[in-house]
Amino acid sequence: MLTIGLDVGGTKVLGVIVDPADPGRVLEERLVPTPRGGEGLVELLAALADELVALAPEPPVAVGVGVPGPVDHDGVLRISAHLHLLRDLPLRPALQERCGLTVAVDNDANGHAVAEHRGGAAAGADHAVVVTLGSGIGAGWISGGRLVRGANGFAGEPGHMVVDANGPPCPCGQRGCWERFASGSGLARLARDAALGGRLAAVVEVAGGDPELVRGEHVTATARQGDGEALAVLEELADWIALGLSNLVNLLDPERIVIGGGLVEAADLLLPRVRTVVAARVLGGLRRGAPDIVPAVLGEHAGAIGVALLASDLVAPGR
Amino acid sequence: MLTIGLDVGGTKVLGVIVDPADPGRVLEERLVPTPRGGEGLVELLAALADELVALAPEPPVAVGVGVPGPVDHDGVLRISAHLHLLRDLPLRPALQERCGLTVAVDNDANGHAVAEHRGGAAAGADHAVVVTLGSGIGAGWISGGRLVRGANGFAGEPGHMVVDANGPPCPCGQRGCWERFASGSGLARLARDAALGGRLAAVVEVAGGDPELVRGEHVTATARQGDGEALAVLEELADWIALGLSNLVNLLDPERIVIGGGLVEAADLLLPRVRTVVAARVLGGLRRGAPDIVPAVLGEHAGAIGVALLASDLVAPGR
Repeated sequence: MLTIGLDVGGTKVLGVIVDPADPGRVLEERLVPTPRGGEGLVELLAALADELVALAPEPPVAVGVGVPGPVDHDGVLRISAHLHLLRDLPLRPALQERCGLTVAVDNDANGHAVAEHRGGAAAGADHAVVVTLGSGIGAGWISGGRLVRGANGFAGEPGHMVVDANGPPCPCGQRGCWERFASGSGLARLARDAALGGRLAAVVEVAGGDPELVRGEHVTATARQGDGEALAVLEELADWIALGLSNLVNLLDPERIVIGGGLVEAADLLLPRVRTVVAARVLGGLRRGAPDIVPAVLGEHAGAIGVALLASDLVAPGR
Repeated sequence: MLTIGLDVGGTKVLGVIVDPADPGRVLEERLVPTPRGGEGLVELLAALADELVALAPEPPVAVGVGVPGPVDHDGVLRISAHLHLLRDLPLRPALQERCGLTVAVDNDANGHAVAEHRGGAAAGADHAVVVTLGSGIGAGWISGGRLVRGANGFAGEPGHMVVDANGPPCPCGQRGCWERFASGSGLARLARDAALGGRLAAVVEVAGGDPELVRGEHVTATARQGDGEALAVLEELADWIALGLSNLVNLLDPERIVIGGGLVEAADLLLPRVRTVVAARVLGGLRRGAPDIVPAVLGEHAGAIGVALLASDLVAPGR
């Protein structure tokens, strides 16, 4: 059995073909630009699905679509910052009619979690949290071996967990959301604040001389060259990541936490300190045994693979 | 079928007999003081169980014990601030041998959640969070109709979710835990801070004239008489309760939140504002439909009833 996954990102749509029996391996993939605001997305996804069907060694049985935002149980994206034309669009029936295959639509972070659980770094863990630290923060929970969706299908938005009640404002309307600190944009903000405060000279130089232009990758590149000020900013980032993960451990008690998203490229710089701080913070500390905290292994394919698996579940319920 | 529940609190042990088919009704109950530090607790619980067995119209089949702290899957209390002698005590086998009945040991907040779910304010909700706001904060999650325990059995400790990274220190070692703000002791702290700052004259008078002696019940009593400054402190408390509940909604997406514990006595003063603030804070705000937020109905019996039900599950697995 083969299945198709289409992961709709802010700038690109990634399409893959996978065999649910071997979910870690992508058989074919295609990458196309995301239309601005999501205009014409149904046609684009249908054409991409057609193209992948034509490439497949046997006919795929289902199509999964991952979208960046909370998706209800009917497969409707309810909230989206970037793809506003998708909001409330009945994507699932529209695409199902257009391509004649069973379609599942889900949150991209749920896709990540399912992929890492069935064929990646969360394999074998009945209680796992998969957190994607990208420009924002997404997450999926596995509890008792199953994806937790919640009453509306909106579970798993730790990015908007308030961790600093008097912290910086968030576009969601709150202040001090975890996403303001522990994401790629959080790193950029921490770095710009440090640079504007007169630190991070080496990072500012890499960024072209203007503190306002400092981005996360300038910090990690400079830290890899051993720059103490850049390493200090990454320590600050690691402490914020650990603070939020400790909250999740106190709430959900996972045996394993998988970290994906863009920041996973700096996992070697971040995770040793994240592990130490989580172990010190969680209730019961060293007495309980902190969960394993490991990097994701499926990279940018995870979201597409996961929604492909969720779609195949509709045809042949597996898990 | 009848079953016994014994809820070990910081100062008292409550024993009940219930019929799992009608869990909202307590058939018999007994209340005894908790031995200091937990000394001799196994003998005390066994004697209390014997007393309840003698009172029961038919022989009870199991005994559930609720304890204040995280309990692992073997029924061992791993962390306890007040009952330090209980820590790591193999309570379940010891009591089982002593009283000859099947014994279950669980966290008291898990008991609350199960009781309210099967026979109280969370009845009929497949996705529910039961939060007890007492001197600290406890919680139990129901997901897909089942209690979520996590990998070690330690899930559901939102009291130590950090909500104010630079906030006041917590005995757990962190700063700004939700419990510092949104519990009975949090209310007392908010009130003392206000009183020491020269506000709350009417509350200080009720407390005997010393701002250091102000307790939560002085605030609620004065607020009920319409005192504006006391009502303002309760608004501040409601805002902190709402902040943490919004975090839980973003993470777990429950359809219903049940509020129990000592602060539920002020539910009429607190919950209207809590509901408004949660609806404004949660991701998607008014578009998603915020969960119902309702007071618990089983009161101080909830913990004992719930562990009685969990024990009966071991004999006749129900849910």
